[in-house]
Amino acid sequence: MATEQTVAENNMVISVDAMGGDNSPRVVIEGLAIAAKEHPDIRFLLFGDTAKVTPLLHQFPALEKVCELRHAPEMVHNEDKPSSVIRNRNTSMFMAIDAVRAGEAQAVVSAGNTGALMAISKLTLKTITKIHRPAIVSIMPHRSGKYVMLDLGANTECDAINLAEFAFMGEILARHALGLEQPRVALLNIGSEEMKGKEEIRKAAQMIKNSKINMNFIGYIEPHEIANGKADVIVADGFTGNIALKSIEGTARQITRMIKDAVKGSFFAKIGMVFMLPAVWKIKKIMDPRLYNGAMFVGLNGLSVKSHGGADAFSFSRAVDNAAKLVRQNFVPTIREEIEKADFDELQTVLYDVY
Amino acid sequence: MATEQTVAENNMVISVDAMGGDNSPRVVIEGLAIAAKEHPDIRFLLFGDTAKVTPLLHQFPALEKVCELRHAPEMVHNEDKPSSVIRNRNTSMFMAIDAVRAGEAQAVVSAGNTGALMAISKLTLKTITKIHRPAIVSIMPHRSGKYVMLDLGANTECDAINLAEFAFMGEILARHALGLEQPRVALLNIGSEEMKGKEEIRKAAQMIKNSKINMNFIGYIEPHEIANGKADVIVADGFTGNIALKSIEGTARQITRMIKDAVKGSFFAKIGMVFMLPAVWKIKKIMDPRLYNGAMFVGLNGLSVKSHGGADAFSFSRAVDNAAKLVRQNFVPTIREEIEKADFDELQTVLYDVY
Repeated sequence: MATEQTVAENNMVISVDAMGGDNSPRVVIEGLAIAAKEHPDIRFLLFGDTAKVTPLLHQFPALEKVCELRHAPEMVHNEDKPSSVIRNRNTSMFMAIDAVRAGEAQAVVSAGNTGALMAISKLTLKTITKIHRPAIVSIMPHRSGKYVMLDLGANTECDAINLAEFAFMGEILARHALGLEQPRVALLNIGSEEMKGKEEIRKAAQMIKNSKINMNFIGYIEPHEIANGKADVIVADGFTGNIALKSIEGTARQITRMIKDAVKGSFFAKIGMVFMLPAVWKIKKIMDPRLYNGAMFVGLNGLSVKSHGGADAFSFSRAVDNAAKLVRQNFVPTIREEIEKADFDELQTVLYDVY
Repeated sequence: MATEQTVAENNMVISVDAMGGDNSPRVVIEGLAIAAKEHPDIRFLLFGDTAKVTPLLHQFPALEKVCELRHAPEMVHNEDKPSSVIRNRNTSMFMAIDAVRAGEAQAVVSAGNTGALMAISKLTLKTITKIHRPAIVSIMPHRSGKYVMLDLGANTECDAINLAEFAFMGEILARHALGLEQPRVALLNIGSEEMKGKEEIRKAAQMIKNSKINMNFIGYIEPHEIANGKADVIVADGFTGNIALKSIEGTARQITRMIKDAVKGSFFAKIGMVFMLPAVWKIKKIMDPRLYNGAMFVGLNGLSVKSHGGADAFSFSRAVDNAAKLVRQNFVPTIREEIEKADFDELQTVLYDVY
C-alpha cells in the first residue's frame, strides 16, 4: 500500500505513551488519528494496555495501519514520584521513551506526569555531552510571531552556567523551529538595567557576552515585554519560567472567560458578537493554547515531547506535529553537532572564570 | 471656609512628591485635583520645584486651597541608585517621605523611582519591630473580587521567615482593605503538592502551619489559579511576585491590543463593537489597570504609596485614594498593634526551629 511504502522510505517512527494524560487512552488515539492524516509518512509505536487501546484503534482503520501496539503492563500515575518511576521499566511511559533510546523511534510523545517524563527521559536518553542539565522548552505566540521559552519547569534552581546553556540551546531551537537566522536571545528579569535581578542572571549575561559563541544576545527582557515580540528566545530558571508561563496562560484564559460571560449576559452583546466573529476567530487562531501544545525537553540525546495532561484530541495532535517537525528538521543530531563544534568548552571556561 | 474646617476636624494630611513620574509635575497636580474633589477633607503637603508647580496649581483653585507647597531644590531621577538617594535630603521624594516621619502627614505618595522610594522609606520610616523586611503590596482584580499580592519587588531574594511575615502582613491588609473576615492566604508556587517548588516556600508553609497565629492558610497557589479567586492573599518573594505581576499585566495589555487591532481591521467588527460596548465597558471597569494603581509598602512605621511612573492623572488619583482609604482605616497603627499583640515571637521561634 502507498502509505506503507512511504513509511519504509522515510522511516520516521514516533513512539507514543498511550496511557498518559487525563483521558487516556481515548484522547491519545483520537489525537494520533488527526496527526496520522496530516503526516501519512509517520509510523507510530504505541505502548499501553492492549485491552484498552485495541478497541479504540479499531475505530480508526487508517491510523491502525500505521500503528504498532505493544503491551505495557503498568502505567505512570500523576502522583508517582520521579524517584520511583525510574525504577519501573514496565510502564507505558518508560517503554515508550526506551524505544527512542533503542533507535526504534526518533521521538516520544506523552501526556503523562511531567516530572516522571523528565526523569525517565534523562535516565534513558542521557544528557548531551557538555550540557549540564536539560530544559523544558515551548514555542508560544507573541504579537507578530512566535518565541521560544525555556526552562519551563525542569530545574527549579539554576546557576549561571545552566542559564547560559539554556540560551545556547534555545537559540539553536529558534533557528530550526522558527526559521530565524539570528534569533534575539534575552534573559527573563525584573528590570532592564545591568544590576537588576538575581545574581545568577547577571552572571549568565556576563558569561554570554564574554563568550566567543556567536549569539544575538540582547540582554534582559521583562515579562510584560514578551508579548511585544522583543525577543525570540527567552531564558529563565525552571521556577521563574513556570511562573511566567502559568501567569500568561491564566490571564489569557480569564479574559476570554470574562468576555464570554459578558456576552452571555447581554442581548446586544450577543448581536455584536455575531458581527465580531471573524475578527474573534482571527485572534483565536493565533492565541488558541491548543496550537502550542507539546513542550520539548532539550539537551537530551533524543526527542521527548510532553503534551498537556488535559489536552483534547486536536491539542494532542499538535504535540505529535511538533515532534514530527523537529524530527524532520533533524533537530537532535544538529543540536548535538553544533554543541560539539562550537567552542563550548571555551564558553564553559568563561563561565567558570566569572565565578 | 467649610473645606478648611473639615480639614482641621479630620486632620488628614497626605504628603506628595510633586516631581516623581514621567510627566511630573503636571500629571501629579491634575491627579491631585481629582483626588481633592473626592476627598474634600484631605490636605496635601506638596514637595517640588515651586517655579514649576505653582503655575500648575493656579489652574486648580479648589486644589490650591487644600495644598501647601514647599520648595524642594532637587529631585530623584530614574537612573539614581538607592545608595545615593538616601544621602540626599534635598530631593522632593526625601522631603515628602520625611514629612510622614515628622508626623506632618499620615501617608506619602510618589510616582518616582521604586528602588529610591523603598530605600528612603525604609531609612526614614523604619521597619516595624519584629518584621525583618518590608514588602511592596498591591490590590488587584480577580474574577469575582479583589486580592492582595506581595512582595512585588522589594526583596529579590527571601527566606522562609520573610515569606511567613509577608503572609501575616498581607492577611491584615486583606482584612482592612478588602473587608474580609477570614482572608484565604496562599503561597505562590509552581505546583500544589507539598514537595513542590523552592525550599524556602516549603519551609514557609510549614512555619505558618506550625505557628499558633490564627490564619486561614490554604497552602500553595499556582499563577493560573490567581484569576479564579482561589485566594485573597498571595505571597511570593519580590522576584517571583514581580515576574507574575508583569506577566499578568503584559498579557492583559496584549489581548486588549489584539482585540483593538482586529476591530480596526474589519468593518463588520466595528459594527459589532458598537453593540458590544456596554459589555466591554463592564469588563473595562473591572480590569482597568489604572484603578489598581498605588502599590503600598507594608511593614514600615508609616504609609508609603508608589504610583506607576507612567500613570495618567486619573491613575495617580487612584494611588492617592488608596493612601487615603488606608489612613482612614488606621492601617499602619493597626498592623503595628496586631503584630505587637499577636504571638509573633512565638511565630518566629517556630520559624527558626524549622531551620
